[in-house]
Amino acid sequence: MIQMDPQELLSLCKRRGFVWPAYDIYGGLAGLYDYGPLGSALKNNLEGYWRKLYVQEEGFHELSCPIVAPEPVFKASGHLDAFSDIYVECTKCGETYRADHLAAGMHENPASLSDEQLGKLLKQNDVKCAVCGGDLTSPKRFNLMFKTYVGAGKGKAAYLRPETAQGMFVNFAQIYRYGRERLPVGAVQIGRSFRNEISPRQGLIRLREFSMMEAELFVHPESKSWPKFGSVKDEALSLVPSTGEPRVMKLGDAVKAKVIANETLAYFMWLTHKFAVDIGLDQRRLRFRQHAKTEMAHYAADCWDLEAEIGYGWVEMVGVADRGSYDVQAHITQSGVDLSAFERFENAEELEQEVVRPAFGTLGPLFKGNAKLVAEAISRLTPDIVRGREKVTVDIAGKKTDIPSSCYEVVMKKEKVSGRKLVPHVIEPSYGVDRLLYAVLDHAYTKKDEYVTLRLKPAMAPIKAGVFPLMPKDGLDEAAKRLCNDLVRAGITAHYDDSGSIGRRYARMDEIGTPCCVTVDFDTNKDGRVTIRDRDSAEQVRIRKESAVAAVRAIVSGSSLQDVSKMG
Amino acid sequence: MIQMDPQELLSLCKRRGFVWPAYDIYGGLAGLYDYGPLGSALKNNLEGYWRKLYVQEEGFHELSCPIVAPEPVFKASGHLDAFSDIYVECTKCGETYRADHLAAGMHENPASLSDEQLGKLLKQNDVKCAVCGGDLTSPKRFNLMFKTYVGAGKGKAAYLRPETAQGMFVNFAQIYRYGRERLPVGAVQIGRSFRNEISPRQGLIRLREFSMMEAELFVHPESKSWPKFGSVKDEALSLVPSTGEPRVMKLGDAVKAKVIANETLAYFMWLTHKFAVDIGLDQRRLRFRQHAKTEMAHYAADCWDLEAEIGYGWVEMVGVADRGSYDVQAHITQSGVDLSAFERFENAEELEQEVVRPAFGTLGPLFKGNAKLVAEAISRLTPDIVRGREKVTVDIAGKKTDIPSSCYEVVMKKEKVSGRKLVPHVIEPSYGVDRLLYAVLDHAYTKKDEYVTLRLKPAMAPIKAGVFPLMPKDGLDEAAKRLCNDLVRAGITAHYDDSGSIGRRYARMDEIGTPCCVTVDFDTNKDGRVTIRDRDSAEQVRIRKESAVAAVRAIVSGSSLQDVSKMG
Repeated sequence: MIQMDPQELLSLCKRRGFVWPAYDIYGGLAGLYDYGPLGSALKNNLEGYWRKLYVQEEGFHELSCPIVAPEPVFKASGHLDAFSDIYVECTKCGETYRADHLAAGMHENPASLSDEQLGKLLKQNDVKCAVCGGDLTSPKRFNLMFKTYVGAGKGKAAYLRPETAQGMFVNFAQIYRYGRERLPVGAVQIGRSFRNEISPRQGLIRLREFSMMEAELFVHPESKSWPKFGSVKDEALSLVPSTGEPRVMKLGDAVKAKVIANETLAYFMWLTHKFAVDIGLDQRRLRFRQHAKTEMAHYAADCWDLEAEIGYGWVEMVGVADRGSYDVQAHITQSGVDLSAFERFENAEELEQEVVRPAFGTLGPLFKGNAKLVAEAISRLTPDIVRGREKVTVDIAGKKTDIPSSCYEVVMKKEKVSGRKLVPHVIEPSYGVDRLLYAVLDHAYTKKDEYVTLRLKPAMAPIKAGVFPLMPKDGLDEAAKRLCNDLVRAGITAHYDDSGSIGRRYARMDEIGTPCCVTVDFDTNKDGRVTIRDRDSAEQVRIRKESAVAAVRAIVSGSSLQDVSKMG
Repeated sequence: MIQMDPQELLSLCKRRGFVWPAYDIYGGLAGLYDYGPLGSALKNNLEGYWRKLYVQEEGFHELSCPIVAPEPVFKASGHLDAFSDIYVECTKCGETYRADHLAAGMHENPASLSDEQLGKLLKQNDVKCAVCGGDLTSPKRFNLMFKTYVGAGKGKAAYLRPETAQGMFVNFAQIYRYGRERLPVGAVQIGRSFRNEISPRQGLIRLREFSMMEAELFVHPESKSWPKFGSVKDEALSLVPSTGEPRVMKLGDAVKAKVIANETLAYFMWLTHKFAVDIGLDQRRLRFRQHAKTEMAHYAADCWDLEAEIGYGWVEMVGVADRGSYDVQAHITQSGVDLSAFERFENAEELEQEVVRPAFGTLGPLFKGNAKLVAEAISRLTPDIVRGREKVTVDIAGKKTDIPSSCYEVVMKKEKVSGRKLVPHVIEPSYGVDRLLYAVLDHAYTKKDEYVTLRLKPAMAPIKAGVFPLMPKDGLDEAAKRLCNDLVRAGITAHYDDSGSIGRRYARMDEIGTPCCVTVDFDTNKDGRVTIRDRDSAEQVRIRKESAVAAVRAIVSGSSLQDVSKMG
């Protein structure tokens, strides 16, 4: 394997228009990058393929929620209280540092230390500011969400979402209804997220503003089998379990041996791996690493990261987690709104269970004309929702209405019931777009005697074909331009180029990963044929001019130059 | 024309999963909406078609820049100083109001009043808080950008972009280089923008977070003709000029009569109109309204809004403006970085002109080993950039370097020059995605005897085909599911449904704009045919099962049911 130097790759990215540091004319801001024309196209291709897999083929429902979200959302999710890093600040020049990063090498796991212990450790080692040599403050907590205020005057506190997931959790009732009230039902979202990193320094790997593709699959808490699992159970993945040795295991065996918690999780690990390979990652440099119990959120049942080996080492690209009922339950508790699913029994059953009963004596005088509607709304609540609250908020005739706890009580009741309410569990595959895009470039980059080729998968390549006249004269240029237009009209991104030697033009296209080039030469007028050249082998075949659009389309779909040459 | 009630349309949107108020379980936040599955699909289709027009066909380069941007960007653009509204606040309950909105009806143009005059007017009319009747404060200015801070500790002030345009202006040098240093060169960006509206109340029309599709065409300041203009000069548009009567004019005539400032502007007005009609807006309810001189930014040469007549009245959908050199010049001035283009003369000319000359005596001792590089960088500056500044910042060996004004001087010089620097002008078509999407729904909505049909253009429809078994039994359901899968595998969004009467199922699909439905019935097994039904005419034809995928694809491309019936 080549150990790819990130600086070399970022330099190519900048020079050719994939990505570059944002707001550079004003000195930039660490952790913010622009996608240029080639980067945008690659990003669109990557996201488009993901949408095809998850929305078209797996049937997830796509949402698009606002980035700005009100405070209670993150109170519920835990981000407001616990989404923070520890930093120290230079007392002289104000430079800030992640405290745990500074302590690397002084302790085997600085992330496990308390704020106080970290401070002591830095003091003992006499750590100073790397910029000016000044003294550092004690460690302080810093919430990684960007805060802002909505509305004039004081405004309401709000945050830029640190992940797209919460927008889907708070909409579970909408998603469940849209899916005709059946489990499993899944939602996806592709969009920007934000983390106010203390001192991001790793290019596209640690950004303050980044794109995510997240899927939230809402499943029955007691049924995590997956109908399509049978078709992938013999597929093998490279696993690094939290206990025991790394190994390659068939998914069926991994679930049977309880290495992977359940079929659904295993299926989406397989789909994630397929996605990664299809966009061009080298499967020899991919592995799934399981979170250790201590590393995992307390509520999560199991969590696996797809890691890719790139110039920065092994880096997390995708997390696939069984998050249990945590997320939906947290929003039920915070909002008092019922976000449960309903499981219909095959036959109605006689059950003794806790129910919420309206206290008519209290609610009658309080709600008067609306008392009946309020009583009905109360009857639909579950004991879980009301327990320990002083009031619940429900929708009465389209209006949010507070109902004090004196209006209801939790009682045992024996009755024939047609089903039961349940809070769904969530299986979440969460993809980092920018990291995946960077890894695609890293794995595609090859250099031989200073000649750089990006071996991108044709379906991902920003430009599908270079179109050249051998010389820009004698009508060759006109013919090449017409051919280029034909490709564009057929929906294929093509690039016309007539400047410099033909070798230079090939080199420019190879360097940005264009899978093929089509050249019109002096023989074209005589034999009606053009030359089509393959990026990776540099081989060339001549085909009829009229076949050029079909030939490029075939190459984009994965055909070899040999197949194409048969088109005549 | 139907006067569409926004509440009726928003209610359909919410019920069927197009859009709904965001964060509803927490009481929501005015001006924030979620796109549900159907809304997301419609939005993707709309943006995809725009990208096809601008990027594929017109050759614009797509960028994707961060939403969070540092303060100097908006200092340069003018947003920091001038992007504000005037509000008053209730002294009792804290409710806020746009002062000019409250003054509507008390003055013929409240927006033209000074803050003081507005305050007086409200006082004279004894305006109170509409919520609690409390007294209102004097008018105050409120900047509409969302502010936040980047980095730990105090952090750096930053803003959520109020438009995507600035990301392209600050990148002019990158875009120009990517386009091989030729004018015109264009960039586009599709993405979220943010305006902290004081009290947004018009659904999707006035959002605090919204999507834009913006194009910035950088053109030669003295050459605003457009090669393709000839092909559209005989097309007629409905114009409302700032002076004179509304009229329908051919574009060629409008440019000749100087009603529209130049060919380039007129061409992009045509393209905007074409886009609007292609996505499904009714051209009888479209017009271009020219900004009055007083309404236009002082630097703009000409500006036209595409307006659509919807339930809220005539509403701006797209702005097409000639912004002159304002934007690029503003960033040159603010940053001190050279963002000019270079015009190469056909023959080198002898010219006497002002140039920036290095003062070697000063810069030598100051920059030592780098003096030569600094001198070269100085020679590349234009007098415009250095004039009146105490220092300029240039890139020396990849590092931003400050050069004090003592290191250069502006002198007249007669020399043979091969070309000249110029600051490009900008033609900007700026599209509001959410408004366009709302207008598409508004114009597509039809109701007859309470039966609702969304007559969406097939290419825009979120779902292209409903696939039904006549009854979910006797294998009809299996056959219909197979057919649905065939469509999905062919990349066509299809929806299987077997619940309720066939009439109910048609109605559900008509209500969300699905252009056709395919039904498998008891005859299918005998004659191998399925029924395909057209949404708008409710007509049906029977075609061979094997033709179903091709038939749906043809309908999505605009074929009629008659054409499809010929497929056999």
